[in-house]
Order: sequence, then structure tokens, then C-alpha cells
Amino acid sequence: MARYVKDFSEGDKDQKDLLGGKGANLAEMTRLGLPVPPGFTVTTDACRTYMSTGQVPAELADEVSAALTRLEAAMGRRLGAADDPLLVSVRSGAKFSMPGMMETVLNVGLNDTSVLGLARVADDDRFAWDSYRRLIQMFGRTVLGIEGDLFSAALDKAKTDRGIASDTDLDADALRELVGTFKGIVTAEAGRDFPQEPREQLDLAVVAVFNSWNTERARLYRRRERIADDLGTAVNVQTMVFGNLGATSGTGVAFTRDPATGKTGDYGDYLVNAQGEDVVAGIRNTLSLHDMEQVDKASHDRLAEIMRQLENHYRDLCDIEFTVERGTLWMLQTRVGKRTAPAAFRIAVQLVDEGRIDMDEALSRVTGAQLSQLLFPQFAPGTYTKMLTKGMAASPGAAVGAAVFDPVTAQEWAAAGKDVILVRRETNPDDLGGMIASVGILTARGGKTSHAAVVARGMGTTAVVGAEELVIDAEARSLFCHNQTVREGDTIAIDGGTGEVFLGDVPVTPSPVSTYLDEGLDAALAQAADEDAADLVRAVDRLLRHADTRRRLRVHANADNGADAARARRLGAQGIGLCRTEHMFLGDRRVLIERVVLAKDPAEKQAALDALLPLQRGDFVELLTEMDGLPTTIRLLDPPLHEFLPDLTSLSVKVALAKAKGEPDADDVALLAAVEHMHEANPMLGLRGVRLGLVVPGLFELQIRAICEAVADRMAAGGSPHAEIMVPLIGSVRELRLVRDMALDLMATIGAERGLSLDLPVGCMIELPRAALTAGRIAAEAQFFSFGTNDLTQTTWGFSRDDVEGAFFADYTTNGVLSVSPFETIDELGVGRLVQIAATEGRASRADLGLGVCGEHGGDPESIRFFHGVGLDYVSCSPFRVPVARLEAGRAAVETGSSDSR
Amino acid sequence: MARYVKDFSEGDKDQKDLLGGKGANLAEMTRLGLPVPPGFTVTTDACRTYMSTGQVPAELADEVSAALTRLEAAMGRRLGAADDPLLVSVRSGAKFSMPGMMETVLNVGLNDTSVLGLARVADDDRFAWDSYRRLIQMFGRTVLGIEGDLFSAALDKAKTDRGIASDTDLDADALRELVGTFKGIVTAEAGRDFPQEPREQLDLAVVAVFNSWNTERARLYRRRERIADDLGTAVNVQTMVFGNLGATSGTGVAFTRDPATGKTGDYGDYLVNAQGEDVVAGIRNTLSLHDMEQVDKASHDRLAEIMRQLENHYRDLCDIEFTVERGTLWMLQTRVGKRTAPAAFRIAVQLVDEGRIDMDEALSRVTGAQLSQLLFPQFAPGTYTKMLTKGMAASPGAAVGAAVFDPVTAQEWAAAGKDVILVRRETNPDDLGGMIASVGILTARGGKTSHAAVVARGMGTTAVVGAEELVIDAEARSLFCHNQTVREGDTIAIDGGTGEVFLGDVPVTPSPVSTYLDEGLDAALAQAADEDAADLVRAVDRLLRHADTRRRLRVHANADNGADAARARRLGAQGIGLCRTEHMFLGDRRVLIERVVLAKDPAEKQAALDALLPLQRGDFVELLTEMDGLPTTIRLLDPPLHEFLPDLTSLSVKVALAKAKGEPDADDVALLAAVEHMHEANPMLGLRGVRLGLVVPGLFELQIRAICEAVADRMAAGGSPHAEIMVPLIGSVRELRLVRDMALDLMATIGAERGLSLDLPVGCMIELPRAALTAGRIAAEAQFFSFGTNDLTQTTWGFSRDDVEGAFFADYTTNGVLSVSPFETIDELGVGRLVQIAATEGRASRADLGLGVCGEHGGDPESIRFFHGVGLDYVSCSPFRVPVARLEAGRAAVETGSSDSR
Repeated sequence: MARYVKDFSEGDKDQKDLLGGKGANLAEMTRLGLPVPPGFTVTTDACRTYMSTGQVPAELADEVSAALTRLEAAMGRRLGAADDPLLVSVRSGAKFSMPGMMETVLNVGLNDTSVLGLARVADDDRFAWDSYRRLIQMFGRTVLGIEGDLFSAALDKAKTDRGIASDTDLDADALRELVGTFKGIVTAEAGRDFPQEPREQLDLAVVAVFNSWNTERARLYRRRERIADDLGTAVNVQTMVFGNLGATSGTGVAFTRDPATGKTGDYGDYLVNAQGEDVVAGIRNTLSLHDMEQVDKASHDRLAEIMRQLENHYRDLCDIEFTVERGTLWMLQTRVGKRTAPAAFRIAVQLVDEGRIDMDEALSRVTGAQLSQLLFPQFAPGTYTKMLTKGMAASPGAAVGAAVFDPVTAQEWAAAGKDVILVRRETNPDDLGGMIASVGILTARGGKTSHAAVVARGMGTTAVVGAEELVIDAEARSLFCHNQTVREGDTIAIDGGTGEVFLGDVPVTPSPVSTYLDEGLDAALAQAADEDAADLVRAVDRLLRHADTRRRLRVHANADNGADAARARRLGAQGIGLCRTEHMFLGDRRVLIERVVLAKDPAEKQAALDALLPLQRGDFVELLTEMDGLPTTIRLLDPPLHEFLPDLTSLSVKVALAKAKGEPDADDVALLAAVEHMHEANPMLGLRGVRLGLVVPGLFELQIRAICEAVADRMAAGGSPHAEIMVPLIGSVRELRLVRDMALDLMATIGAERGLSLDLPVGCMIELPRAALTAGRIAAEAQFFSFGTNDLTQTTWGFSRDDVEGAFFADYTTNGVLSVSPFETIDELGVGRLVQIAATEGRASRADLGLGVCGEHGGDPESIRFFHGVGLDYVSCSPFRVPVARLEAGRAAVETGSSDSR
Repeated sequence: MARYVKDFSEGDKDQKDLLGGKGANLAEMTRLGLPVPPGFTVTTDACRTYMSTGQVPAELADEVSAALTRLEAAMGRRLGAADDPLLVSVRSGAKFSMPGMMETVLNVGLNDTSVLGLARVADDDRFAWDSYRRLIQMFGRTVLGIEGDLFSAALDKAKTDRGIASDTDLDADALRELVGTFKGIVTAEAGRDFPQEPREQLDLAVVAVFNSWNTERARLYRRRERIADDLGTAVNVQTMVFGNLGATSGTGVAFTRDPATGKTGDYGDYLVNAQGEDVVAGIRNTLSLHDMEQVDKASHDRLAEIMRQLENHYRDLCDIEFTVERGTLWMLQTRVGKRTAPAAFRIAVQLVDEGRIDMDEALSRVTGAQLSQLLFPQFAPGTYTKMLTKGMAASPGAAVGAAVFDPVTAQEWAAAGKDVILVRRETNPDDLGGMIASVGILTARGGKTSHAAVVARGMGTTAVVGAEELVIDAEARSLFCHNQTVREGDTIAIDGGTGEVFLGDVPVTPSPVSTYLDEGLDAALAQAADEDAADLVRAVDRLLRHADTRRRLRVHANADNGADAARARRLGAQGIGLCRTEHMFLGDRRVLIERVVLAKDPAEKQAALDALLPLQRGDFVELLTEMDGLPTTIRLLDPPLHEFLPDLTSLSVKVALAKAKGEPDADDVALLAAVEHMHEANPMLGLRGVRLGLVVPGLFELQIRAICEAVADRMAAGGSPHAEIMVPLIGSVRELRLVRDMALDLMATIGAERGLSLDLPVGCMIELPRAALTAGRIAAEAQFFSFGTNDLTQTTWGFSRDDVEGAFFADYTTNGVLSVSPFETIDELGVGRLVQIAATEGRASRADLGLGVCGEHGGDPESIRFFHGVGLDYVSCSPFRVPVARLEAGRAAVETGSSDSR
């Protein structure tokens, strides 16, 4: 049996690895008895051998000869024969679709003799010479590497010389002359004549397709799409059929359902007397399938019948290319069709209702990324007005509002009922109030994991960041860009899905799916604009509920206050996986932390800590009330203390200027001394997390006490609080032991005071490589681990999110070092391996160890699949991402067949 | 056979795990037939059971009874019998010596009745009552937990009441009365009477010794000495013998060689009519062994004979405790004696020459830490004058010189022939010239791995860092501390081994070993002050040469210029493991880097790069000339570019002040903009190393070109250059592939230009966890790995050396999280595991992969042993540490028996 060449009749749709997508589907249709122009596929195996050795396999020539002989016998014609020539197309076809990236040569087999035969058989001189002209042009460019402009210019000149505008107006004589010109170009540029030998044409075309796998653009495309470079492409050699042989011929594309909306029913375009490239060129208007029925009912009906057959067979939306040659229908391609997010959800449940697939398979047909797209309002298509600039798409959605340049104004205007978009050079924790009040956030600096981006995604607020062309003058309350000035109050619009920034108002369509998630099915159906929207909401509801029944991973949320917790719970969160207590020390309370830091003696410090206690306890009571009955994991203070103090450089300048004027402010001078003392060269690697807790006595004790008292209060009120204490930045088991001992003492003390038994689980973040590497030991003191994959990524890669994303992630994507930011999707080889080590060794040491993840990756579909695979108990993500995580956790379980196991 | 109790006659010296050090050696001496007072050992096993269950093992009581019965039969006396009582001591004895940390109870068996019997038998009332008094005092404090001061106060009162000064002046009546008082204290404080039952005394004393294992001070001691907490202690129960029974009795300690200098010949102290604690108290002058011979020749000769026997048996310096009871010699303890560094080296070769051990064993008896101590000049003991303050001991040695407060003055004064000590708040790369010119470096801030400390250790220059009490005013050229002011030019002295800082001149003794290493054996012998010094030099020479024949690890040096390279080679370096090219961009050349960074267009940047090329090439020619024939690993630029620019805060203040005056300097304003643009929140995790090389085109290319051209120049000159190109901060194989491709291109180009074949190995640092975790992939592109364990420690632990050491390492040592800084000795569980993974998986992927280490750990004895164990090819350390590394690499090979294998 031939190794490198397979007839279409030999393969099937499951052989995409070997035959490529196109070849496998042609084989499948052939197997189904559909009218496919016969042919054969040169396999990816041959391409891989060619790539690794630089030579086509020795066996290939003989195998092609054999296949060609079979093809010629079947067709009763010979390749390029003088009388009635067999012509073939030579097309690339890789495992994964790479549209437009690789090469095609049509009409192989034509030469100075066979063109005459073709003209005779087709009874159409013009058609024959045009086909020959096309062959030389494609072959010259693709196979011989001749600049395509040379051919276009000659074509244009032929038209100009004759005073005509369209290629189709060139008659047979003109085309015959053009063939002569084209052959001259080939001889001059390639240093050889255009090959007249059909088999030589074929062999060279096959190699040219192989080579097109490794063009720069193809490699860039694969990098972006994360397709491996070593797959190689197959080459499909297929009998040519022609849609441009007059009024009874034509060509078209069709879908078995509407890929834009998901509506049932055939959908497609047909062009009479045309070839595929004419459809792409879009010169003439196409007919709908309904109109095609009027023109050629037989072909239409046969096509409709085939489409039903294909959908039944593929059990999914099919995307079809076909040609009618003088009344005979030929199928040139089919594949499972791409579709929009709404179509994906609707089609999945339609197929269930039609009995073609079950709910598990329907679930596997939709993605979290698609669900995300459905959650956000969108700009109505085609309504964009003046695009000002483009930044990074940081948090999706569409937002329109008045530009404001400081958080205070944002809060004031929002309180007055205005939609505002907060515009900042970059944001910091002090901007939080303003960010919450805004419908959108726009920054000039920072990457996709900058403060602005992370916070915005956490809140589900639309954001565009790193729009570097913006020159923002916060003092003047304006921005400047491309000769345009935007002042406070001017309306702007941002698209968080594309990064685009617009001037003026742009109409926005709200998301019915978002309403469904927030307010339930009935509210969403009541609000739905039309039946499409209602149908979509019902599809989402069914699939999401099915995911919940299948998933093994629990979904928790990251939430720091009652409102976020309540929202998370509405969206389906089964607990809080991360409460960041530092978010409770912003605004007015910040001064208390400052007092802890600056205290001149222990009494002063204790007073500040004492003042914080009731506030913290109140925070936790609120949180535990909202999460009654559900686990609530509270992380002790994580960031370095200096984050609560002013910026060193600004304060230095302020003090120096005041001193120069002879008016130094004593408080500022003292504050500067403290800030200088606490300044760290690399705060991310400095005195923070558990280190701070152990070195600055009182802080962790205050927090643990507040948690215990809040639990006691809730128990006294008849509630069912399930607080868990989480210690950040553990690197060594001893650190955890010290905090755990402190926590056990406090539980005993407060339990005794309240007459209760307090038994809060104590666990830790695994966010340092050393914690992962010594997880077996740490598990001796930890009741649970929560992977902080953001920080773990930072230290595993040695990347500071704040610094590197803007500085070189763009370069790194271009040069292929990164195909996706490791802060977006977990880096399985590095960070993932540490997670795997820690999960395995932690559980080996303590069988009932709880395992979760609370980094940004907890809401990322691909990462969720990984976490499912390593056996975590839950993922925790921002409230807004909870539905996505539910869906993806369900998919992961269904696809690995492990929804029942632990 | 008994499990928990072993008679002395049952054990031997190799059973330290079970019997503790003291018990094992008592057993060994018993086995040798030496006069050891009979007794038995309660094993560490019993203690461990007690610790884990809180109960002594059930079998223990019966086993003690049986052992006691055997002991009583052997001695012909019964424990605490009324007539002629057997008395026993109860002493702790763990596997590792913990001097003074645990408890002892003597004279167990005395009570109101047996005290009379003892008085009769000893014919000494005073002795008997004094013994009883001591028992109650020790028992009360140790077993019953009574405050010791209560007994001391009663003893003092007894003396005051009688108007006498010394305990020995208390007569029998007074002591009898004191026994009554002590018994009263016991009853009052412990709520029980002093136990009269001898067996009860014994059992309680045994448990008290167990408990003393876990006192706070014992735990702290173990943490400092890195002794495991779960070993437990043994308890030795031994027949009492008395050195305080008159002029024919006495007690003493002896050494079989001088532990201070290593001189041969017995050495010891003897005290007539005394007990051990009297020797410790130091009230009376002791006799030398020679003097003892005059007093009690029989005992002396017997002792001398035993000491020879013990040394022959232990084949090492022995440390002995003995007692003579009325003319009979008893051996109470022996062990291999502690010794100074010079003694360790001299004794090791003496024993070889005496035929007792071979050179391998001699090598295992000395350590790199001891060799380090021998390398530095020392302050002559007892000559310290005014200590000013104490900082951290950062780089050993003793230095005396004039205080200077800026690097320029340091260089000027040094050029004028003055010894200077550079005093700075902290140092930075700009101070390097001044640091090189100084005999010592003193800073007020920074830890043991601060810039000052690392550079000083690298140069072998004495340094004290982080002397926080110093208030340094660089502008006023003075420092202030404890009401003292030191001005420029005042003489100060620093001890880099202790961290002490002195005012005024302190005499310094130079190191003959240092002369030996730098100038050879003959020069050192010529310089040696006396025969001891000469003997030491010869011993070091022999052991170091032996280490070289045994070690498998090669020793390379970290060196950045010709002078360092030459020195490293003299000290035995077999190559350069790390040339930090960034050190070549200091001083005048810095402006060129600044120009690269600030260039307004590509041409300006290229001009700066072009200017750097000949300078870099010259650097490399110099280095390769010095290292002719040896591997020379050159690391491409590693630090972030902003390190070559001014500090953001200082520059901001400068510009703000200038602006306030209306006189802004345009250059400064432009520079500030650049500095702000390049500012990073966490530069350690930012745009540096290979990232910079890939993102800022030209830099790496310049360096690789300079290396290739230098190699070509050296080849043309007939040299044998072995340059290797090392890429820093690799996190992903793709980064290395890009640089390697660039390097291969340049080698081909320059090789063609010069008509040479350039084939320089290209490898990378493994200094990020991700690099270690994906080492198998990276090895596909790397010919060698060099572990950068400093950076790897920073990211694995999430510790910035600059930030955390001062901030909390002290706390972390106290609370036991760290027993030693992971920057000093490699953290085997975390960082070491990554090294192991990378070495194993790297070699699996490429069998001939070169493996080395170039972090600070390359010079640390304990870490070297680890690197030997994981199979690295070489360690690289600062030139000064090369001899230490040679010695330790030899020891590692000898001790693991793997000197011959790869």
C-alpha cells in the first residue's frame, strides 16, 4: 500500500493528521458517494519528510504515478493529453485550517498543445486560453517565485491596450497573446521556460505547496494560532471542474444553518458562470440559494439533499463549497463551519432537540470564550464614527460616557447620574472608588495585567489600557491625540473587546445573557429584543445548567466585600476563594495603616490596630452573612506596607521644593524618612505577605482576631459561617507553623470567651516556587492550598507583570517566544509543572488537603481545563467570570470523562 | 536484650545515634579496658519515645532495675544504702555535643541516712554534707524546677552569717544546717519533700534530662548549629567518683596535642582536691600535666599511657576528662577534640606522617571554612582598643587604615601610598574604583549579600556592612557614633570576621597561607614568622595538592578583567566560569551605554555601539590572553539598562529644584524623561538579560562580535583562546534559540572574514525556575548550563537580596524559619531541587551538556558538596575562594568515594 499518496476513496474524515482537513473531508464525501471530482492526496508525512531532509521521499514519484494512472483510468482522460486533457488542481490542506496562508495551483496539465484540446472539448476558445493564462500566472508566482506584479501589469497593459476595463472582456485572441507574454516573463525571470510537460508541472506544484508551509506569513499565523510548526501540509490533487463554462455552470458556498445567528435552514451564495476566485473578488452580486432554485432547480435540489445528508453525517453545521459544471453538481469541500458565539450556543441545543447529539456533546461544542463574548454590551455594528486611537483590549464590552480625568470627579458625576469613563495615565489602588463609579476605564500605560486591567476585569467593567498615543494631562483635565483634544465632559466610547477608542456617542446594544445571569431567565426573556435573543438566552441557560451537573471542579469567586460576594453568589459561585483583605484598607482606613507603620512607640501602634479591629470584624461579618453556608477564604494582608504610603519620588520632590522655599512641613519630612526607610528595590520580592506578618507583630493577630470574632458573631446570630484563614507568600513550612500556632491560640482564646468551639481551617497560598517544591512538608501544617498563579508566574518566569508586559511582551509574541501571555493562560511546562508537583506531593502528605486556585487563571478557559486535569477541588475567579468558569469546568469534565471521580 | 538501657560494657564509639556522644565514648573506653567508673546509658530511643508520647516507655523501669542490679553487684554496693552507699551521676549526652545546654544531676543516692554512711566511709563529714547539699541544689533546680537563686541566696546567707567568703570555708555543721534549709526550700517551692528514696531520685533525674532536650535555649542552640530537633538525648548513669577527697584526689582535662596550635605533645590542666565544677569556676590556678607529674607520678604516668592509647585508637586529637580519687585514676570522658583552624591542618598531616591515617582521611579532617580563616590577616589577640560599634561580618580579615568617605579620595590616597578604609552609607557600582583601592570597606546599610559585601568578598577585601549605628555624613566627610566623631583621615580598624569596628590603630598579623597561595611555598616559608607558621604552610600545601588529585569538580573563577583572571589562575582556577560584561561598562564607558539608551535615532545608537566594539574586544583579548588554553565563559549583558542611568528620585528632585528656580537644564530634563520611561517597579523581574538582548537590537550583537573578534585576534597571535558565550536570564528555549542563531551567524561571518573556523560553545544561565523546569528543552539549544544560584534563590524564594536581608533575615533566623541564609548556603529542598531537575533532565536531553555553577554558592563549602553530588562539572567562585573550593571539591570526592567517576 502506498505510504505517501492516498486516493480520495481510501481515507475518511478522521485522518486529518495524515490527509489534512480538506483531504480528509474530500475522502469522507467520496466515501458517502457524493459527487466529488476524483483525485488523491499527497500526505503530510511526505511534507514532513521533505521538511526534515530537504528532499521529497524517494517513493513519492512512483506513488504519484500509480495514483495518476488510477485517476486517468477512472476519468477516461490523460493528464494534459492533446485531445481531451485531464486537468487537476493542486491545493494545500493542513490539519488545521490556515485560510489564505498557503498556495494553490489550478489547471495543471495545460500546455501549448492541450489548451487546444480543451478549447475543442469545451467548445470555448476563450475559456481554454483564459485557463492557460491563469495556470502560467499561478505557476509562475507560486512555483517559480516570480513577482506577481509582473503578471498583473501585463494583464493590465493588455486591457489598456484594448481600451477595456474587465478581464472578462478580453477575448480569446487577446488571451492567447497574453499567454505568450506570460511565458516570456517566465523565461526572463525564472531563467527557464514554462514547463510544457504536465507531469513536471504537477511535481513542481506539489513541492511548491510543501514550501508554502514555511513562508514567514504562514509561520507567523501558526504562532498566533498556536499551531505546531512540524505538522506539515498535505497536498490535494483533484480533477478540475469548471463553473465558468456558461450559464448552466456556476459556483457557490453554503452553510447548513446560519453561522451568524444560528438560525436553522440552509444559507448560501451562488454565482452563475464563475470560478471560486470570482466569488472571492466580489465583483458580481451573488444569488441566494432560493434564487439558485429558480435558475437551476435540479442542481439546487441535489445540493439541498446533500446538505441534509452532510449535516446528518457530521452532526453539526457544515460549510460547503460546490461547483456546477454544465448542469452537473460537484462538491469541492466541506467542513464543520465556523460560527459566531450566539450561533454556537443556539446550534448546540438545536442539535440536541433534533436528536443528533446529547447534552454532553452540546456542551463540548461551546466555549467559555464564546460565553464571555455574550456577556458584554456591544457597539451596534457599522455605527463606529471617529476612531481616535487603539490601545490594548483589557476588559471586554462597550462603554460610552463623559471623559473624566480623576477618580473624585468620576464619583461625583456618577453620583449625579452620569455615565463616565475614567481616563488616567495609569491607575493605582487610590483610583478604586473612581473606577467602580465609571462605566469604562481608559489608560495610556500598562499592559493586560496592569492594575487598571486586572481591576476592570474583576469588576466586569469595560477597559482599554496602554493606549500609548494618548497624551494625558490630568491637571488640565484633557487629553491630546492626533491633533484632537478631549476635555473633561466630552463624550468618548471605548470597545474593550478590540481596544478601540472613539470620539462622540456610539449606540450600544445591551446583552440579554448578562441580564439572564444577573436576574434570571424570566427577566432576560422579558427583556429580549427578539426571538433570536430569547432563543439564545434559553440555549445558554440549558448549557450552563448542564455544565453544573457535570463538572467536578467547584467554582468560587474572588470578592472583598458584601456587594461583590452577593453578585458572585447570584452568578453561581459556591464560595469565596479569595478575599483580599488589603482592599479593606483603602480610602479613609488607609490612615490607620499609615499610623501602624509610622507609630513612634508600641502604644501608638496598638491604638491604631485597636481602631482597625471593629472595622475588619465588620467587613468579615458582612462577607460571611452574604456567603452564609459557603466556604469563605480570607487571605491575610499580602502587599508590602509601603504600598499604603506615598510614592517616594513624588514625596522627595515635594519635600525638596518646600525646603528650597524654607517651608518644610515637619509631617512630610517625617513621612519621607519613613518612606525612604521602607523603600524597596524590588517590592514584589520584599517584605510582604507572611514575612510582614511575622516581622511586624500585631497585624496578622488583628486580622485573625477579627475573623474569629466575626465567625463568633455570625454563629451567635444563628448563621452558618465557614471562614478559612489563608496565609500569603509562604516559602517554608516553618512560616506557616508560626502563623498557624498564633491562629490556634486565638481560636482557643476567643472560643473560650464566647463559649463556642472555633475550628477554622488554616491554609496557605502556594505562590512561590519554593512553596510548590516543598509542598509535601508544608501540607503538614496546611489544611488547604490555594495556588496564586499570578505570583507564581512572576517568580517562575522572573517576570514582573507591572514591568514586562508593556516593555517586551509584544516583541516576545512577534518573535515567537510567547504565543500567549503566561499571565493569561497558565504556562503548563513551567508554572503548571509546579502546580502539579505541589498538588501531588501535598496530597501524598495529607490526603484530605483542599486544593484550589485563586489567580487570574481561575477564570481562563484553557487554564481551567488544566486545573481540572491536575485534580484541584475548585477554581476561584472574579465574580464576573464565574459563569465562564462553570461552563469550562463542565466541559473539562465531559471531555476527560472524569466528571464523577474526585 | 534490653532495648532502652545499655551497660557501658555493651556499646562502642560508633553507637552515637543510640548512646549519644558521651555514652558511646564511655562504652568505647570500657571496651578498651580503661578505668571507667561503671554505669549504663538510657538510650536516645527512650527519650524519643518520651518526647512523642509524653510517657517514658513502659519497659524502662524494669530495664533500669536490671542494670542497677548489675551495677550494684559489680561495685559491691547498693544505691543509697545506709552503710556504704553507691552514688551515681545522671548526665545528658546527645549525638552532637551541646555544651552547657542540658542538665546534670550528681550524687544521686544521697539522703538523710546514706549521707552518714558516706561520711563514715570517706572519713570526711564535711565532704558528705557538701555532697548532699549539692544534690539537693541540683535536683531542686533541675528536676523540680525551683528557681536556682533561692539556693544561691541561702548559701550566700550561710556564708555571710558566718563571716566567711568561700564555699570551702563552710564546715560540716554549716553544711548540715544548709541541707536543712535547702530541704525547706524544696518543700515550700515544689509542694513536696525532697525525695529520700534513691530510686525515685534516679527516675526523676532521668526524666529531667529528657525534658532538658526541649528547653528554649537548647532549641535555639540546635537551630543555630543545624541539629535536628527529633534526635533526643541519651542519659548516662555512672558511679560517682570524687576528686575532692583530699590531697591525693583531683580532677583535670587534657588534650593529646595542643588544640590551639596543633603542636605535638600532651597538654592539659589538673586541679588537686577538686571537682569538675571547681575547674570550670576557675577559682584556683590549675597545674600543668608536667606539674601533675611532680604531685602524683603514678596517676600522671597512667594518664599519659592512656592518652597514647586513646590517640592510637581514635587516630586523632583526643580531649579527655579525668578524676583521681585517693590515688586511683578514673576516666570520665573522651572525645575527638575541637581545634583551631591552624591546628586542624597541622594535626591532619602529623597523623599522616605518624602513619595513623592516609591523606584521604587527612583531607576529610579539614574544611574549607577553616582554610578561609587562614587566608586573612588577623588582629593580634588581646590588642583590641576602643570598639566603636559592630556591623555584619561580610568579608573576613582585619584591616586598618585612614577613613575616607568617597571613592575618589580613596583612589587618590591609595595612589599616594596610604592604606584607606572606604566608609559609605551603602555602595553602588560607581564606587568600584574606590573599593578596589581600599584595604577595607565599611557600610552603614545592607546585608551580607549587599553590593558592598558581594564585591568585597569577590576581591577578598575585608568588609563590615550594615553597621546601622553609624551616622555617615558624606558631605561633611565624617561619621558619628556613640558620641564619637570620625573625620576623614582618622585611623579606624575593622574585623571582617566578627563585624567589629575599632577606633585607632590595631596591630595586624599577616597570613602566611595567603602568601603561599599568591606567591608559592618558598615565598611563604621565607616570610613565616616562626616554625609553627612554616609548618602550617607546609600542611596546607600538602592537603591542597592532595585535594587537587582527588576532586572530580573543576574549579573556575568569576573574573571580569585581566588582573582578576591572572590572580585566579595563580590561585589554581582552571578557567573562568563567569565574566560579567556589565562590569566593563563602568566609569568612562558608562556614557556610551547612556548614549545607546538615550539615542534619538538608530544612527546615533549605532555610533555608540560602534564605539563600544573596540573597547569590548580589547577587554576580551586581555582576558583570553591571561586564560590562554583554559575555558573562558563570557556572559552577555545582564542588568537592566536603567542601572546605567541616574537614580530616578535624585534626578527628579534635581530637575524640580532647577525648574523652581526657572533654570531647568535641558539635558537633565531629557535624561529624566528617559529614566522615567525606563523605570521599573521590580527591576529584578524586568527588562534585563536576554530580554534586553532581544528587545534592544545591537547590544548582544556587539558583544558577540567583540568576543568572536577577540578569539580571532588571539588565534592570529598564536594563542589558544577558549571563549564560551553565555546567555543570561533564559526562561524559554526559544529565547536561547534566537540568540544562538545570531551567534552562529556572526561566527560564520567573522570566521569567513578572518579565514578561520570559529566554533564557540553557546550556553546559558539557569537562574529562573522556569529554566530549570524546562531544562530538557533548553538543552536542545545549549551546549552548557551555568546555574546562577543567586538569582535562582531570589525567584525560588521570592526574596530580593537587596531588600529582605536587612529587613527580616535576622528575625527569620531567630524564629527558626532560616538556619542559614539561602544566599550563603544553597537551599537543597527548594533551589537545590531545581538544580537537580535541570541537571538530570538537561543531561537526559544532551549527554555531553556542560554543567557548572557561577553563583556565590560556588565558593561555599556545604554547597560545593551538594554540587558534587548532583554531578556538575565545575564550580565557579571569586578568585579568592578558589583554594577553598579546591579543598572542598577534594573533600566531597573523597567522602562520597566518587573521585574517579564522572
